[in-house]
Amino acid sequence: MLGLIQERPLLISDALTHAALYHGRTPVVSRRRNGSFYHSSWSELEYRVRRLANALRRAGIGHGDRVATLAWNNHRHVEAYFAITAIGAVCHPINPRLFPEQVAYITRHADDVGLLYDLEYAALAKTVAENCTLRVNVAMCGSDELATGGCADVEAYEDFIAAASDDAAVYAAFDERTAASLCYTSGTTGNPKGVLSTHRALMIHAMVGRTSDLFDLRPASTACAIVPLYHAHASWGLPFAAAMTGCALVLPGLQLDGPSIAETINAFRVTVANGVPTIWNDLVGHLSTAGGSIPSLGRIVVAGSAPAPALVHALENDHKVDVCHIWGMTETGPCGTSGASLWGSESGSNQLARKNKQGHGVFGVQMRISNDKHAHCPWGDEHIGALQVRGPYVVSGYFKQEGAGSVDADGWFNTGDVASIDNDGYLKIVDRDKDLVKSGGEWISSIDVENTAGSFPGVREAAVIAIPHERWGERPLLLVVTADNAKIETDALLDFLSDRLAKWWVPDRIVFVPSLPKTGTGKVMKAELRKQFADAIAVEA
Amino acid sequence: MLGLIQERPLLISDALTHAALYHGRTPVVSRRRNGSFYHSSWSELEYRVRRLANALRRAGIGHGDRVATLAWNNHRHVEAYFAITAIGAVCHPINPRLFPEQVAYITRHADDVGLLYDLEYAALAKTVAENCTLRVNVAMCGSDELATGGCADVEAYEDFIAAASDDAAVYAAFDERTAASLCYTSGTTGNPKGVLSTHRALMIHAMVGRTSDLFDLRPASTACAIVPLYHAHASWGLPFAAAMTGCALVLPGLQLDGPSIAETINAFRVTVANGVPTIWNDLVGHLSTAGGSIPSLGRIVVAGSAPAPALVHALENDHKVDVCHIWGMTETGPCGTSGASLWGSESGSNQLARKNKQGHGVFGVQMRISNDKHAHCPWGDEHIGALQVRGPYVVSGYFKQEGAGSVDADGWFNTGDVASIDNDGYLKIVDRDKDLVKSGGEWISSIDVENTAGSFPGVREAAVIAIPHERWGERPLLLVVTADNAKIETDALLDFLSDRLAKWWVPDRIVFVPSLPKTGTGKVMKAELRKQFADAIAVEA
Repeated sequence: MLGLIQERPLLISDALTHAALYHGRTPVVSRRRNGSFYHSSWSELEYRVRRLANALRRAGIGHGDRVATLAWNNHRHVEAYFAITAIGAVCHPINPRLFPEQVAYITRHADDVGLLYDLEYAALAKTVAENCTLRVNVAMCGSDELATGGCADVEAYEDFIAAASDDAAVYAAFDERTAASLCYTSGTTGNPKGVLSTHRALMIHAMVGRTSDLFDLRPASTACAIVPLYHAHASWGLPFAAAMTGCALVLPGLQLDGPSIAETINAFRVTVANGVPTIWNDLVGHLSTAGGSIPSLGRIVVAGSAPAPALVHALENDHKVDVCHIWGMTETGPCGTSGASLWGSESGSNQLARKNKQGHGVFGVQMRISNDKHAHCPWGDEHIGALQVRGPYVVSGYFKQEGAGSVDADGWFNTGDVASIDNDGYLKIVDRDKDLVKSGGEWISSIDVENTAGSFPGVREAAVIAIPHERWGERPLLLVVTADNAKIETDALLDFLSDRLAKWWVPDRIVFVPSLPKTGTGKVMKAELRKQFADAIAVEA
Repeated sequence: MLGLIQERPLLISDALTHAALYHGRTPVVSRRRNGSFYHSSWSELEYRVRRLANALRRAGIGHGDRVATLAWNNHRHVEAYFAITAIGAVCHPINPRLFPEQVAYITRHADDVGLLYDLEYAALAKTVAENCTLRVNVAMCGSDELATGGCADVEAYEDFIAAASDDAAVYAAFDERTAASLCYTSGTTGNPKGVLSTHRALMIHAMVGRTSDLFDLRPASTACAIVPLYHAHASWGLPFAAAMTGCALVLPGLQLDGPSIAETINAFRVTVANGVPTIWNDLVGHLSTAGGSIPSLGRIVVAGSAPAPALVHALENDHKVDVCHIWGMTETGPCGTSGASLWGSESGSNQLARKNKQGHGVFGVQMRISNDKHAHCPWGDEHIGALQVRGPYVVSGYFKQEGAGSVDADGWFNTGDVASIDNDGYLKIVDRDKDLVKSGGEWISSIDVENTAGSFPGVREAAVIAIPHERWGERPLLLVVTADNAKIETDALLDFLSDRLAKWWVPDRIVFVPSLPKTGTGKVMKAELRKQFADAIAVEA
């Protein structure tokens, strides 16, 4: 029996209009190219979104159309995300760090009919324009700036919205399962795959994002979205959660170096921010050499890779910043787990160990570990297997590859990660399954070996790949890039690893290389390394 | 175009299993009849819920069946709410303060097929059993206690669940729009009406309930559900929000007097609680006479009627408790507005004035004021009209009265309240529309006149009703119940009112009465008063 409740959809525009209505004077701040700040508010931002939404519709953008963006974290990019989705079109933020051939591939695959781009990315914008038929091509600038870049038939953003109506009827309701955001994953092998998220998924995700499990937002908070808006559905959904809460939002632009981030945090008394460990390493490094403090910052949310214990220690002890380590993928919302809770009852060293894990499932996301022995493993560090998740914001398939089947009949999505869940429910990512080394029937975590090697003085980067071995099946090979001027003795590094790893995890060989091949987003292409090294070593093994 | 996200429903059982999995050791505490405390945890509670769900199913309770409860706030009642809804049946908590004829009416109207009751309500349980055909009739006690009360064919709760399976397959997924909770409103006129809420509505409501706009929960919180579970979908949904968050939950039983509440708060370091103003008056009264403090309590959430300024002042200044004044109805989730935010930037007296208002809409709830001049009034204290709301947890109709039409074609539910929304978005409830006095084309708020009269020394209760008047249409009549031994001079009270109200709001006459007629939930029956007084006065007017 169904209940008697209104069938009102959960739509992204509801978050924006809520912020504008009840928190209209709350600031939205954006850093300009020249380092100065543009000051706006939820009320003003909503007004501009409304005009942009009307402008897009007038220009022929309709329900389901894909509109690409090539932009950094600024107010116009946030406006674009809200306006495109408000009319039922799909925001397709393109990672501008991708290689031009990849941009060409995904814009053709997405079949984009609109584009909004920052002037920095005029060259890539041409690539987009050449690979699809655009009804709208807008440079995100004022008309006076347009001359400085861009390709043919481009309109300046400020002209485009100035000419449009501000009719609020543009926020019409539609099915909450309507596609809203198309983000391509930057896989290390094969072509990028499109994750097509919905209004419902992004709003449920934002409702979880508001809570103390993730961004811990309240109206008095000031959230800084450091993770790019093109990453995993708008900076892990932070602008949506901020609008729903009505807190202040700071967009740091392109200035992501340590000194700039410190300046942005202190200028607006930022209380919470998201970012990958590199950002926080740079910030902590800057503060420790140049001095200074970040007293307003109460929490950071970290993902991408595990923050090093030294980084967590520096942030928590020296700067009193709570480090919330999470795990997720574009395919999982992205935020699938949270390391924010349970720490209160634990002692210092346990807390630090826990922070290196990826936390527990947040409300709505179910997780299980599956391996040869159990379809659904019991909890315990000893049960390592494939991490599978399901929930109301987890993918059911990829765009134009619906039948490809990374989701099983019971709805479990196979993440491609190998992990365990400890007896308190904490997830530990062991490796990507394709990067695991399987030696003598046991698994070796390439991530753990890399992290250990990375802490040896003089090691800049480390990568571990499996190489074939007659007796053990596979053995780990360690590739090392040394820091400038560093000299590393192979035996000293092997001794260091032997002291810290299980005996059979220690690589048989170390190869020093000048650099590691990487994707446009900086991920090491291990498949490429395996091609380079497999044959040579197999002979010697 | 629809997105590619799993169609996982939002179900109440997901909140419970989340709490049990990741916050299993977090306490759930329940006060017994004898004042001692029963100690449980989310893990244990979930285990008992699972057995109860299996027991109910085995006893023939199926999807859509209504199962009534007659119980106070204790662990078994919370278990019942979770177990009944887990199998797709509908929890129908009956207010045990209703008159037996009303209980008979609603149990027949609901067509209950199951009942779980506390021993205190054995007599009312018989009324339920006599008015419908029960497949399950369970007294919420151990088998050793069953002899102390109850009617025929009754099983003891502990026996009922001990005999059942603990198979987790009982948590099967179904449509999130499935009915979960049936609460009858205790109208002051006519028969009670059934509000049939859904899993989706209650889970979205709980997601809002977790945030700083309402209960402000985090895993380290301890929430005390003082509002009865039979009130507006399980104590304003607090147990659902607590489970979703994984915080501690305290159920204070029947001991709701000031000293007991203080004792419960201090015994478990309660951080947040909900309740009507009477509860907080009693608590503050007790603390001011007997001494003592409640240092753990950080926030209370208050609704039902506006807390008096003196009460807010005592709680905030003397006890450092943040008073979050909200507005809602069973029909609106219930939580429709929140007074939690914006205060940071306001000075003391402004803050106090704001706390007397009902706050602003929470995410998802849209509000508008509609009157003769505007279908959708602008904001401003001067625009008074009918308060209408819509949103994903607002009713679309009443049980078995789907066509009765309290919702218009655009989905706006007419609340029956007359209100204004100020320029900052703050709602002010002026009156119930049927209680407004319309004098000379202008409105007089019976609530405001009553509150002002109520602050006069010696006034215990005050009620204002409209009486017909030849020239003005209607004029207010003030009925006063004096406190024990108090003597009130009519002229002194009229002078007092004249100093504090607009001249035309001051009643022409005051009548002293020994008591006011009330409903089972303590609401004054103004329709009854109008019948009693209208004729007599009309002649004199």
